[in-house]
Amino acid sequence: MERKSLAIILAAGEGTRMKSALPKVLHPVGGRAMLAHVVEAVAEAGIERTALVVGRQSETVAESIRSGAPSISVFEQGERLGTAHAVLAAREALEETPQAVLVLFGDTPLVRAETLARASAALEAEDAAVVVVGFRTPRPTGYGRLVEEDGALVAIREEKDASEAERKIDFCNGGAMAIDGRRALSLIEAIGNDNAKGEYYLTDIVALARSRGARAVAIEVDENELVGVNTRVELAAAETLWQHRRREALMLSGVTMTAPETVFLAWDTEIARDVTIEPNVVFGPAVTVGEGATIRAFSHLEGARVSPGAEIGPYARLRPGAEIGKRAKVGNFCEVKKAEIGTGAKINHLSYIGDATVGEGVNVGAGTITCNYDGANKHRTEIGAHTFVGSNTSLVAPLSIGADSYIASGSVVTDAVPEGTLAFGRARQVNKPGRAHDLRERILATKRSKENGNG
Amino acid sequence: MERKSLAIILAAGEGTRMKSALPKVLHPVGGRAMLAHVVEAVAEAGIERTALVVGRQSETVAESIRSGAPSISVFEQGERLGTAHAVLAAREALEETPQAVLVLFGDTPLVRAETLARASAALEAEDAAVVVVGFRTPRPTGYGRLVEEDGALVAIREEKDASEAERKIDFCNGGAMAIDGRRALSLIEAIGNDNAKGEYYLTDIVALARSRGARAVAIEVDENELVGVNTRVELAAAETLWQHRRREALMLSGVTMTAPETVFLAWDTEIARDVTIEPNVVFGPAVTVGEGATIRAFSHLEGARVSPGAEIGPYARLRPGAEIGKRAKVGNFCEVKKAEIGTGAKINHLSYIGDATVGEGVNVGAGTITCNYDGANKHRTEIGAHTFVGSNTSLVAPLSIGADSYIASGSVVTDAVPEGTLAFGRARQVNKPGRAHDLRERILATKRSKENGNG
Amino acid sequence: MERKSLAIILAAGEGTRMKSALPKVLHPVGGRAMLAHVVEAVAEAGIERTALVVGRQSETVAESIRSGAPSISVFEQGERLGTAHAVLAAREALEETPQAVLVLFGDTPLVRAETLARASAALEAEDAAVVVVGFRTPRPTGYGRLVEEDGALVAIREEKDASEAERKIDFCNGGAMAIDGRRALSLIEAIGNDNAKGEYYLTDIVALARSRGARAVAIEVDENELVGVNTRVELAAAETLWQHRRREALMLSGVTMTAPETVFLAWDTEIARDVTIEPNVVFGPAVTVGEGATIRAFSHLEGARVSPGAEIGPYARLRPGAEIGKRAKVGNFCEVKKAEIGTGAKINHLSYIGDATVGEGVNVGAGTITCNYDGANKHRTEIGAHTFVGSNTSLVAPLSIGADSYIASGSVVTDAVPEGTLAFGRARQVNKPGRAHDLRERILATKRSKENGNG
Repeated sequence: MERKSLAIILAAGEGTRMKSALPKVLHPVGGRAMLAHVVEAVAEAGIERTALVVGRQSETVAESIRSGAPSISVFEQGERLGTAHAVLAAREALEETPQAVLVLFGDTPLVRAETLARASAALEAEDAAVVVVGFRTPRPTGYGRLVEEDGALVAIREEKDASEAERKIDFCNGGAMAIDGRRALSLIEAIGNDNAKGEYYLTDIVALARSRGARAVAIEVDENELVGVNTRVELAAAETLWQHRRREALMLSGVTMTAPETVFLAWDTEIARDVTIEPNVVFGPAVTVGEGATIRAFSHLEGARVSPGAEIGPYARLRPGAEIGKRAKVGNFCEVKKAEIGTGAKINHLSYIGDATVGEGVNVGAGTITCNYDGANKHRTEIGAHTFVGSNTSLVAPLSIGADSYIASGSVVTDAVPEGTLAFGRARQVNKPGRAHDLRERILATKRSKENGNG
Repeated sequence: MERKSLAIILAAGEGTRMKSALPKVLHPVGGRAMLAHVVEAVAEAGIERTALVVGRQSETVAESIRSGAPSISVFEQGERLGTAHAVLAAREALEETPQAVLVLFGDTPLVRAETLARASAALEAEDAAVVVVGFRTPRPTGYGRLVEEDGALVAIREEKDASEAERKIDFCNGGAMAIDGRRALSLIEAIGNDNAKGEYYLTDIVALARSRGARAVAIEVDENELVGVNTRVELAAAETLWQHRRREALMLSGVTMTAPETVFLAWDTEIARDVTIEPNVVFGPAVTVGEGATIRAFSHLEGARVSPGAEIGPYARLRPGAEIGKRAKVGNFCEVKKAEIGTGAKINHLSYIGDATVGEGVNVGAGTITCNYDGANKHRTEIGAHTFVGSNTSLVAPLSIGADSYIASGSVVTDAVPEGTLAFGRARQVNKPGRAHDLRERILATKRSKENGNG
Repeated sequence: MERKSLAIILAAGEGTRMKSALPKVLHPVGGRAMLAHVVEAVAEAGIERTALVVGRQSETVAESIRSGAPSISVFEQGERLGTAHAVLAAREALEETPQAVLVLFGDTPLVRAETLARASAALEAEDAAVVVVGFRTPRPTGYGRLVEEDGALVAIREEKDASEAERKIDFCNGGAMAIDGRRALSLIEAIGNDNAKGEYYLTDIVALARSRGARAVAIEVDENELVGVNTRVELAAAETLWQHRRREALMLSGVTMTAPETVFLAWDTEIARDVTIEPNVVFGPAVTVGEGATIRAFSHLEGARVSPGAEIGPYARLRPGAEIGKRAKVGNFCEVKKAEIGTGAKINHLSYIGDATVGEGVNVGAGTITCNYDGANKHRTEIGAHTFVGSNTSLVAPLSIGADSYIASGSVVTDAVPEGTLAFGRARQVNKPGRAHDLRERILATKRSKENGNG
């Protein structure tokens, strides 16, 4: 039987420099916890089993992972005595003699499945006990250096232990590694703590493996792939890198972004070919945009589906449950929530459409409001196809308006409107000629009186 | 008689990497097709005649150019057998023995008129048959290198044909060149296709000219000027460079931008001195802003004229035909379309003013809507000077409101309001003391009933 | 008695390259005049006395500083004969024999108090007569170079006077310096004008001090700290650096910004820990945000206080006097001005609440407008706790609505609503079955008639 591979994700760090009540690995990148990105990379790499090592009092992390990925085993590291010690918290999983053991950190949200697969594959291809993922940087200061000889990795040397020559090495430890599963437990158990802090460092595994006659090698990835996050400044930097990666992928697949650096995507945003996205658009989670649609400037979408050819914005907000039909338009200062908008329907200005069904070809005038909430319940509004809703109309739900109807501007509509009906709900206008002058005089008198301190 | 110069713009590339139904050279930069930028640079450089070489099935490109610049001759390149072959598609134009022949690509939207003029002038000044426009870059890999000797250009060497020494050259072919018009046709016809792909490369013209005893030289431009666009990522990069160039020019002319990288300009945006532009402002085509005006954050302008001292935004949208008078204000969540707004008039909050004339000094209250559309026709609203329009008013067009009038808040105005008139159009208020409690009880009962699954 | 220190701020430059009617040092960075930033750094550094040197016709600058910092002495430099001459305009202050004299420029808004204190302290610690603040840059061309020997500063060499070796020095003059107060006046008076322009250069003080047997040294600061502003492009660059500095400080203190480069702060913005700020948020002056609040995308805040746990935006505008209570919400396309919003109250959509008090737990429906202005006076609206304001309601101020009341949607409320009252102010709906068809016919007839040119 094929042995399974194991990923051990280390997430026991306290993250005090985040200055946050939220555990570090749960801070989001692309709208999703950093840890979830790492878990997804592991799954995409085809690694069958995942062990998560959390610290004490990390119940929040454990719970978050259990609800999102119930197959992951969670282990608690009691004391924090170094990375090798953390890995041994998952001893139970290591004892199953996996094919490969991948060790990586929960705060490296940009790690790619491909890298994990490469590291795994290199164990066999290079006949190595350990494969370390490294990166090259013009500013290596502070990183552990990967010391190589004849294509093999000799040691991971910490900055403080490095010779002057070693400090010039620009190939650095990325923090992720693959270990041959048959040798992993024995090697990690043999790591000692004879150092200044008295901790067990996983990085010692390289020299240790070599001392046992086994081979270690390093593979290289882009400098940015293994960035770790310890502060909110680094969190923002990781977000920037992640956004850049996603925007490029979308543009290369045929999406136009006038100013990609101002478009913010979520981890699950799906955008089809020949969609144009103007500057300053924010995508929250769960949005799909169909071919040829246009998302204009200053729009904000969450949990929404935009059909092909639709036009959204500028300044449109689609909230969860907004389903915008083909060639439909949602224009400036409009909010749509839990509502299906029919093919070719138009909601162009200053409207709130919530808990509604708007039929094909309906025109919703400027300033239309669905009054969907009575203080406790949400009620639905149904508008039949090709109905014209005049501007500044209040649609008091629950409400049903038939097809081909016509609602006069400025109406308050409280009762059902049957198909083909003309509905009014507004007061008659009264003109009082010449009276504007008198009124203005009174208003100005009030002003003067206030200014004199008598008001 | 002075011979005329000729520009040949190559636009026959298929642009498959754009993954788009739109031909590559019609993708916009600064709101205008890339090709139009190139055509404008040619015209500004004083080049009298322009030939455009398009591919088969490029009718869209040919049409776009014919409608925008009818004097340009369009030639079709049947098969695609290299750049020299493409140039020969315009043989008819070459046969007129122009003064200089400028060859450039339709996907280089940042090329400047000054560069074309410099290249042209260098033909004579340097007594050269060919002048190639080059750029220096720290990352030359992939570009053709400009091999020089004693100030003359010896050859354009493609990466794959370059010696190790030549690969270290950081002076690269920018793709644009000027050719002496008397020798152009003869030289280009002599270019062979004895190479791996069997194509005719225009870059061979340099070595060829030299073999005939003629001189070639290179001139240098900024690394970014001749960037070509092959993917949407490169399109976005070109847009960024173009925006940067335009923002700098405006700032140096006396416009303040707090965060220039968040201000997006169109090719024809005109902004006067001492205008302040806050962060996150988008200019579509055809906008002019007069001296001392302020464009506040999150504003979006298209086809609009803003007079001196006016204040727009934050969150104001001016659509085509918006003409904002001196010291007038259009404030947050307001949309103005096809409307003249008089001197000092104020539309400060949540309003839609379309198809209207708003007189001097008018105050339009929050939430005012011009109901300008009846489902088929657009109607106009006229508001006389110094009239006060109360908040949340519906102005049902066609409508005429005289000067010095006063419209009560919350009115629906359907009939003309003569000058000086006080107009009401709202229902009387009815209070039902103590009844809020009963209503709330019923609402909560509904809620409970729903929660119990009976609703 | 301890002698006081003196800062001399040079602000006499004309700033013609700004192309502005506003004096250069009054152009804002972070929403405050550049000069005010410099004045604040001086004050924070504990420098007791400040002299400001302005040019002729700089009354605006003098006034601005007098109103903001009345203790500063303003001196006028008549002719402009160089920086040493400018410093001597403040001779009266120099004659008081200060402890240290700090000379710095009014157009360097990023200078830090810590640097001024370091420069001052170095006078004594290094037993120096002059301490020059320098920076290292890979592009030193154009800057005066700091020529050092054995740890001492030998001279400040202008580009044009530098030897080839000196031009390779990457340590440059930042323009700020500290001078021993007992020797300052004598040294500056001794500076000559034997140079091409016949001007008195303060930079000559280094060589002069050495010629008198005194010591000069240089201290180093970050390349960006002493950037000067001469054009609006440089103003924007200074703004970017300033914003970057402030954003980093906030993030390191525990504020999350998804896209910090799109968040614009003012000099006095205060944001507590665990606040999340989404992309594209603009803070004007005088905003404080309490712990755990969320500021969603596209929000704009000025003069507002946001209490802990409140949620603002997306697309919310808080204007001066907005006081948002704990866990209250102000949602999309809402504007709040001079209004206290109670704990847990909700103003979620398309509303304008101005000059109002909104009680705890109040729900303000979509499209609600406080009609607070009568053309001359602003009137207040009071809404009692737990009242429900239906959607699209006009609240005509002055108006008092009691607690636990219920306002029907679409109402115009003009009269007081006592506690617990149900209030209506809307017309009855009238349905005209079948009449929509007739109306539509008439509308289409109009359209056809217009199209035929008869309209």
